[in-house]
Amino acid sequence: MFPKNAWYVAAMAEEVGEQPLGRTICKEPMVIYRNAAGSVVALEDFCPHRGAPLSLGRVVDGQLVCGYHGLAMGCDGKTVSMPGQRVRGFPAIRAFPAIERYGFIWVWPGAGVPTPLHPLHWAESPDWAYGGGRYHIQCDYRLMVDNLMDLTHETYVHATSIGQKEIDEAPVNTKVNGDEVVTSRFMDKVHAPPFWRMALRGNGLPEDQLVDRWQVCRFTPPSHVMIEVGVALAGHGGYDADPQHKVSALVVDFITPETDTSHHYFWGMARNFKPQDSALTDTIREGQGKIFSEDMEMLERQQRNLLTHPERKLLALNIDAGGVQSRRVIERWLQAERDAAGAVLATAGAAG
Amino acid sequence: MFPKNAWYVAAMAEEVGEQPLGRTICKEPMVIYRNAAGSVVALEDFCPHRGAPLSLGRVVDGQLVCGYHGLAMGCDGKTVSMPGQRVRGFPAIRAFPAIERYGFIWVWPGAGVPTPLHPLHWAESPDWAYGGGRYHIQCDYRLMVDNLMDLTHETYVHATSIGQKEIDEAPVNTKVNGDEVVTSRFMDKVHAPPFWRMALRGNGLPEDQLVDRWQVCRFTPPSHVMIEVGVALAGHGGYDADPQHKVSALVVDFITPETDTSHHYFWGMARNFKPQDSALTDTIREGQGKIFSEDMEMLERQQRNLLTHPERKLLALNIDAGGVQSRRVIERWLQAERDAAGAVLATAGAAG
Amino acid sequence: MFPKNAWYVAAMAEEVGEQPLGRTICKEPMVIYRNAAGSVVALEDFCPHRGAPLSLGRVVDGQLVCGYHGLAMGCDGKTVSMPGQRVRGFPAIRAFPAIERYGFIWVWPGAGVPTPLHPLHWAESPDWAYGGGRYHIQCDYRLMVDNLMDLTHETYVHATSIGQKEIDEAPVNTKVNGDEVVTSRFMDKVHAPPFWRMALRGNGLPEDQLVDRWQVCRFTPPSHVMIEVGVALAGHGGYDADPQHKVSALVVDFITPETDTSHHYFWGMARNFKPQDSALTDTIREGQGKIFSEDMEMLERQQRNLLTHPERKLLALNIDAGGVQSRRVIERWLQAERDAAGAVLATAGAAG
Repeated sequence: MFPKNAWYVAAMAEEVGEQPLGRTICKEPMVIYRNAAGSVVALEDFCPHRGAPLSLGRVVDGQLVCGYHGLAMGCDGKTVSMPGQRVRGFPAIRAFPAIERYGFIWVWPGAGVPTPLHPLHWAESPDWAYGGGRYHIQCDYRLMVDNLMDLTHETYVHATSIGQKEIDEAPVNTKVNGDEVVTSRFMDKVHAPPFWRMALRGNGLPEDQLVDRWQVCRFTPPSHVMIEVGVALAGHGGYDADPQHKVSALVVDFITPETDTSHHYFWGMARNFKPQDSALTDTIREGQGKIFSEDMEMLERQQRNLLTHPERKLLALNIDAGGVQSRRVIERWLQAERDAAGAVLATAGAAG
Repeated sequence: MFPKNAWYVAAMAEEVGEQPLGRTICKEPMVIYRNAAGSVVALEDFCPHRGAPLSLGRVVDGQLVCGYHGLAMGCDGKTVSMPGQRVRGFPAIRAFPAIERYGFIWVWPGAGVPTPLHPLHWAESPDWAYGGGRYHIQCDYRLMVDNLMDLTHETYVHATSIGQKEIDEAPVNTKVNGDEVVTSRFMDKVHAPPFWRMALRGNGLPEDQLVDRWQVCRFTPPSHVMIEVGVALAGHGGYDADPQHKVSALVVDFITPETDTSHHYFWGMARNFKPQDSALTDTIREGQGKIFSEDMEMLERQQRNLLTHPERKLLALNIDAGGVQSRRVIERWLQAERDAAGAVLATAGAAG
Repeated sequence: MFPKNAWYVAAMAEEVGEQPLGRTICKEPMVIYRNAAGSVVALEDFCPHRGAPLSLGRVVDGQLVCGYHGLAMGCDGKTVSMPGQRVRGFPAIRAFPAIERYGFIWVWPGAGVPTPLHPLHWAESPDWAYGGGRYHIQCDYRLMVDNLMDLTHETYVHATSIGQKEIDEAPVNTKVNGDEVVTSRFMDKVHAPPFWRMALRGNGLPEDQLVDRWQVCRFTPPSHVMIEVGVALAGHGGYDADPQHKVSALVVDFITPETDTSHHYFWGMARNFKPQDSALTDTIREGQGKIFSEDMEMLERQQRNLLTHPERKLLALNIDAGGVQSRRVIERWLQAERDAAGAVLATAGAAG
């Protein structure tokens, strides 16, 4: 269950090159490519001629050409031409709203009118750098939202990198502001775990002193989680410390449903220190990729367990509040979609 | 949906050696072997003792012996012997009509009385050579018939070997003669594509001159497609040119259903030039095998798209006429099978 | 269909080390580990917090800790603690009776009261040595019972090691003693097959003389098969020969259902000669492992054939009597379980 009337990340910009990309978003198989103007286009991945996937085709001078019999498809889902054929009567395929921005390709899989894309200030500021990747994970996207909105799992799943005992000893605080859910945790005077030692060292700060550490997770619908993370040398104000005493960053998570039990996980880290240092970007990406891969087996096996035991009620503890509240926001969006669909039907009925 | 009362290629003759071969033809799992007389036998792949697959057994002095407990099975599906047992009351398994001929093993998976096997003159003439192979493809066999009865796909799928722009620019002509469907295309004064350059060169003809090229596809039920292909140096009469000015061959396609969404594809090329040149046979086989493998991903992905969208109607353009007409012939055969089954039931009812 | 109120081998003792083991027994996914006292514990593999598999966790000071958020689980299926949480109201998970004995870990997957574990004298005597292994096989456990209670298959499946023509020429005798089924075969004055030549040689006996060979298979519920096997130099009394003239051993088979169409097969050999010779144990284990792997493809393909043809009745010959009678014992146990369940319901109804 996922809202369809929303902007989802379908791909990292660099994934769509000369070849069209086939990818399923919210159960909609799509072909994604760039047209002659360089704009991204997302269409149903289904050639109206004989049902071949258009993603096996080619982009010729910015036009998508089916790789089976040469049908040339337009950006609006209407056939432009086909050798030796009149194509005016050909059935159209669906075109999905698509935008390339912030280094990502965004698509709107629903039938409703797209809203403006939300701003991501860090993605457009020269003071920030970003590096990230994509994982394909066989579980409901909401299990990943749960995962990211409850970081006590770091102590257990990521024991050798970012986990530390103090995480699940520190109280967690969850707030809901309209559609935004914020869950935060502050750990004062702790030892920095390996990942943060590396970051301190890389920023010319001592890695062996006690630090104040924080994690502020923000969920926004449909399924984005941004996490402010950082450490400051103890006694300088923690989260509010002067930049010279701290290292901080933003963990970026776009969680895009593929099917009911699989999703595309776009993860990365944005930072506002040493933004020009591309070697540092690579190092962080590699470390983060390794850490996030540790979650995959747990999530996929959890999914299988839940499918085996659909009757079991899970617990909703204080640490789970972030995920629970996020699911409530998702449920509100789903209900709004159902209401809108009902209203359309009612209008149609009144008109008939 | 496939007719069962028909001769299908089950294997290339060389596939059945000392060991019995297990293969499913038209949803019937069969074991195929050669008996003491050297004749091929096709039986249900199911030992009447405990259900073991007989294809895991051995052929001992021309007799099929189950590899589990030693039951010896006869060519008629009746148990011949079993150590320490009286076998007269053992239930019989089904024996399928089977013939070895033209370098292939043919089986008749239906319950009706077999018709004579159709002649293949090129397979028995010393003036012809043949080389080919088998692919196992996860799609309805009719998608392969469509593929072969509309060669405009060569321009797109086989761009680097036999495809060329002129194919889909040349008009196609389709005729139906009873159960035979013929679709043909003639391209005059074109450049020979790489495959035909190789063939011209191999026949001592210049490869850089303009040629007249032809493709004449013949579908015959249940699912055989033979394609006359060739090029003649331009100005010598094309298809009708004197042999010294042309290179021609016959693309041979036996398309045998395995299940509703998979088939065995026996492909090859018969040629009436240099028939003794076995190195040339190997070269052509290798080239053709590579070309035909290019179709597989497209066909399998097309199949998956069609399964996802069973409600979609595909287009039937002029270029699709060969496939459309072939499917009509298949549908007539299926209807005839249904009628015959109905007549049997009606007779049984009247008798009862 | 398998009785659930019975002791099944879940693992070899050495399979449960520092990490908890996840394994499905009789359709119950279990996590198996050793507690602080060193006793084995088997619980549902489902964390009551969020459904993560506990088998992905860790054992810390003898306590099972969930690898996702650190819930500490007790041996009785009740949560002991969780960082920052009160756990008294947490739902319990199921604890299965479990025993470590005879080198194996035994579990009782049913809800009934466990009976005492049956004795295995060879497993506790210093005069005996044991070596074995485990295979995971995709077929109904009863097909393996059939396999082991009818050793005529050795002639065909194991032709190069223990099979010989005389096996299926010798009469087989099957007796039922209560829940025990015994099927035996004696072959006098035969040549020893390769496996037994090796054993004779290893025991300082001539390998080229004629021998008397025996196989006595004993099925006991739920699904254990012990086979007395051996050869004696001909003319010394066969099965009853003085130890100096024979080599004998016990083939040990614990067949544990996983699902309706898969099982864990624990195989091995116990012998009362040269019990200290661990190199010999390894040699025998290697040989036996190779032999038993020869059955796997046959059994898995037989299973698929039976699933394809559920309507077919299999034969029940004299050689099949061991398997047929064993299945009758299993069916009696199943009926007793159904009766007990009915009685519980009836009592509940009368009470209500």
